[in-house]
Amino acid sequence: MSKYNQSEARNLTMTMDFYELTMANAYFNDPDSDNDKNVVFDIFYRRNPGKAGFAIAGGLGLIIDYVNQLHFDPSDIDYLRSLNQFSDGFLDYLANFKFTGTIMAVKEGTIIYPNEPVITVVAPIVEAQLLETAMLIEFNHQSLIATKTQRIVRAAKGRPVVDFGARRAHNIDAADLGARAAIIGGCVGTADVRAAQLFDLPVVGTMAHSFIMKYGDEFTAFKKYAENYPDNTVLLVDTYDTIKSGIPNAIRVAKEVLEPMGKRLKGVRLDSGDLAYDSKKVRKMLDDAGCEDCKITVSNSLDEYLITSLFDQDAPIDSFGVGERMITASPEPVFGGVYKLSAVENKDGVYEPRIKVSGNVEKITNPGYKKLYRVYNEEGKAVADLLALADEKVDLSQEYTFVDPEEPWRKRKFVNFTARELQVPIFKDGVQVYEQPEVSEIAKYVKEQLENEIWSEEQRFENPHKHFLDMSPAMYKLKLDMLTDIQNSEV
Amino acid sequence: MSKYNQSEARNLTMTMDFYELTMANAYFNDPDSDNDKNVVFDIFYRRNPGKAGFAIAGGLGLIIDYVNQLHFDPSDIDYLRSLNQFSDGFLDYLANFKFTGTIMAVKEGTIIYPNEPVITVVAPIVEAQLLETAMLIEFNHQSLIATKTQRIVRAAKGRPVVDFGARRAHNIDAADLGARAAIIGGCVGTADVRAAQLFDLPVVGTMAHSFIMKYGDEFTAFKKYAENYPDNTVLLVDTYDTIKSGIPNAIRVAKEVLEPMGKRLKGVRLDSGDLAYDSKKVRKMLDDAGCEDCKITVSNSLDEYLITSLFDQDAPIDSFGVGERMITASPEPVFGGVYKLSAVENKDGVYEPRIKVSGNVEKITNPGYKKLYRVYNEEGKAVADLLALADEKVDLSQEYTFVDPEEPWRKRKFVNFTARELQVPIFKDGVQVYEQPEVSEIAKYVKEQLENEIWSEEQRFENPHKHFLDMSPAMYKLKLDMLTDIQNSEV
Repeated sequence: MSKYNQSEARNLTMTMDFYELTMANAYFNDPDSDNDKNVVFDIFYRRNPGKAGFAIAGGLGLIIDYVNQLHFDPSDIDYLRSLNQFSDGFLDYLANFKFTGTIMAVKEGTIIYPNEPVITVVAPIVEAQLLETAMLIEFNHQSLIATKTQRIVRAAKGRPVVDFGARRAHNIDAADLGARAAIIGGCVGTADVRAAQLFDLPVVGTMAHSFIMKYGDEFTAFKKYAENYPDNTVLLVDTYDTIKSGIPNAIRVAKEVLEPMGKRLKGVRLDSGDLAYDSKKVRKMLDDAGCEDCKITVSNSLDEYLITSLFDQDAPIDSFGVGERMITASPEPVFGGVYKLSAVENKDGVYEPRIKVSGNVEKITNPGYKKLYRVYNEEGKAVADLLALADEKVDLSQEYTFVDPEEPWRKRKFVNFTARELQVPIFKDGVQVYEQPEVSEIAKYVKEQLENEIWSEEQRFENPHKHFLDMSPAMYKLKLDMLTDIQNSEV
Repeated sequence: MSKYNQSEARNLTMTMDFYELTMANAYFNDPDSDNDKNVVFDIFYRRNPGKAGFAIAGGLGLIIDYVNQLHFDPSDIDYLRSLNQFSDGFLDYLANFKFTGTIMAVKEGTIIYPNEPVITVVAPIVEAQLLETAMLIEFNHQSLIATKTQRIVRAAKGRPVVDFGARRAHNIDAADLGARAAIIGGCVGTADVRAAQLFDLPVVGTMAHSFIMKYGDEFTAFKKYAENYPDNTVLLVDTYDTIKSGIPNAIRVAKEVLEPMGKRLKGVRLDSGDLAYDSKKVRKMLDDAGCEDCKITVSNSLDEYLITSLFDQDAPIDSFGVGERMITASPEPVFGGVYKLSAVENKDGVYEPRIKVSGNVEKITNPGYKKLYRVYNEEGKAVADLLALADEKVDLSQEYTFVDPEEPWRKRKFVNFTARELQVPIFKDGVQVYEQPEVSEIAKYVKEQLENEIWSEEQRFENPHKHFLDMSPAMYKLKLDMLTDIQNSEV
């Protein structure tokens, strides 16, 4: 278990949309609401950011902490009472609130696709409603940053990427937990000390421009740094002029300070200017001076597109420090995960499906209590995902007929394929039944899926191959029937 | 003082870039570094997001909390020791760390412009360095959201805007503290319960689609809600079909449930579909049914441009719920505040200026220990800001000659103008000397400046008037001389 538990230090229960409480109170006060019966909510998202082919599921570890620590403090109850909107019975209920439901989820780090249930909550309506906002916050934020980071890491083609984003993060959690997600997405380290400490991440950092400016003289500043960190001397060379001043001074430090100690200059960092042009000049100057092993690292508002462009220009760059565009996922800083009711258990214990129609077609939901499978071919490549009803048996050891909801008129079959159920139990009757892996293990899981399971055609930036989300015949029929019913009832 | 103090519950001291520590350790270990003398760091930003004419200074209240609580716990020292990069002397120093310096800042909520010092830290180098990251996080995040929100509020032309953003925020702080910044920017309320509780903000919220889906039957769901909240019945009408189902059911509730109780239907909310087209239809249906006082509120990925477009189409909308694009400042989620060294006190107590040149012209800094003035004409309009050296006397009761750094060859004068020094003392010798106002007061201060002091031409979205940042002749000469010196030393 991680040293980090944000709920331990702060009670996050009250971080929720007010409507969770107004709805919960209305349910609680309604004798006809079957509040002891379960409902089913799915968390899913509708669109891959950056026109990408997939996303990475993040946040489960933080959701687990959150659910375990859920409680209302007496001061919270006092505050809610002061609003004069809630019944005394409901407030008493909140004072003793405990989550008693079941949560199923794909493992953190799983490659995910639009419109499939990533996390499913099965619980009494009042409980399930109160969890919505915080679960979405964690899922959305961690998925956003892990997914964006993985794009940047992919663009870097094996060169290390480190997280420099803290100062531009959307406050403290976004820095510390953003670093967590960045590691899941493939960063090799972070500059954020607290994130490194709490999640056992590699921590990196050397100097800012202020260090050179403090000493005024660049050579003196470099020398002082090298004397303190002879095994890890990475010098920031662009405070005055990279080519005329920074690199000559760095080489002088390599020769006059480090080499007499038997040490080598480890690296130089460029943080401004034309990184393609300058890095080539810098490489030549370093090589000519016998510093062939000195690495060039660059930073300055980088993202996957700028890194790709640098490689297109043959820039001899060895590693990347990436900040603002990774830690905020600029220019698409929203991961649109939603929490939608998909079924309601009736008095007889049967789960009745629910659907949301909406004026926007893409906002129509997949109804029912469902199961999600990933289907693999004989080489272990994920060829599609399959949505089935929770009580269906999906057996791919036999030939299996499914429906492609975008071309439902075609007969489609899986032959000689295998299926893995993607969701695993996380909480059962309010008790955690899943052990959350360390952040480094989650990062490894992401890497392995992308290397072994996910088509490279889904991983390209431009016009990636679309992963199929197929349906069992029963699942498809349910959705179609419900839409038809609503259509008919409106006529 | 606010009930919220994030540092109280969590020690945020370790949320910093690792290079703050490597630099601080190098200074600490350097007997020539004059570590008992002060240095001067300025926080400023370089570019208004959204091609806007100005930004709003945020975060000071959170910075005050942070500085007051700064300390390293024994477990932090153990962690840092385990990295084998720091001297024992430095780690002992950190174990007893206390900020002893001076901080000057513009009041939170002040309208600010690029390249002027918003916050200035005057402290020994080791202390000043360690504060960098967290101060930037608070300044950048709060300024980002307050500035974006104010754009949205401006577009809404007096109609109320409320914060619906929590679920899309970049984790818990971004939700709770984002709501704080949204109120500063002009929102009239937030849906985030914890933010409302901690900062005494108006809290708003009614129902999600799940409420209607749970009951299945829309009329039943609306009826249940109205019975619970007869004084505040705002119904979400787009779960199935706004025009065919939602509004007829809402009107039926107004007639059959609310009016018999002597109550009125307060509002309906549209969350999808064509908001311009639907709102007109809805308005007519409501009016025809005698619900003229029923308000129409809309949500669905709104921002300043979509709201402007809705008004251009004469959409009869009374209020706005704004979420993801406000709480993430999409599509420009980065506020680029930086922390730059501008002066170093020498052995004789004289502040020697420092400048950063850089390969990118816009990254050249304004050197020296400075003062910032806002200059007003006789009508109280802010005509320019003026940067002077800290030890200069700026007396606008006389005719005052200044330099426009973009057209330095012209003679420019202030005649009959007044000047207000923008920065006020926040900490003196480590002790807080400033009382931070409540969030609602900061919001009022923003509103007053925009109504009374700031030209409306600076407030338009398209091609706003550029606010002048002028310089005293001495300030301009200092910068020019330093740039010339560096240029000459390179030849």
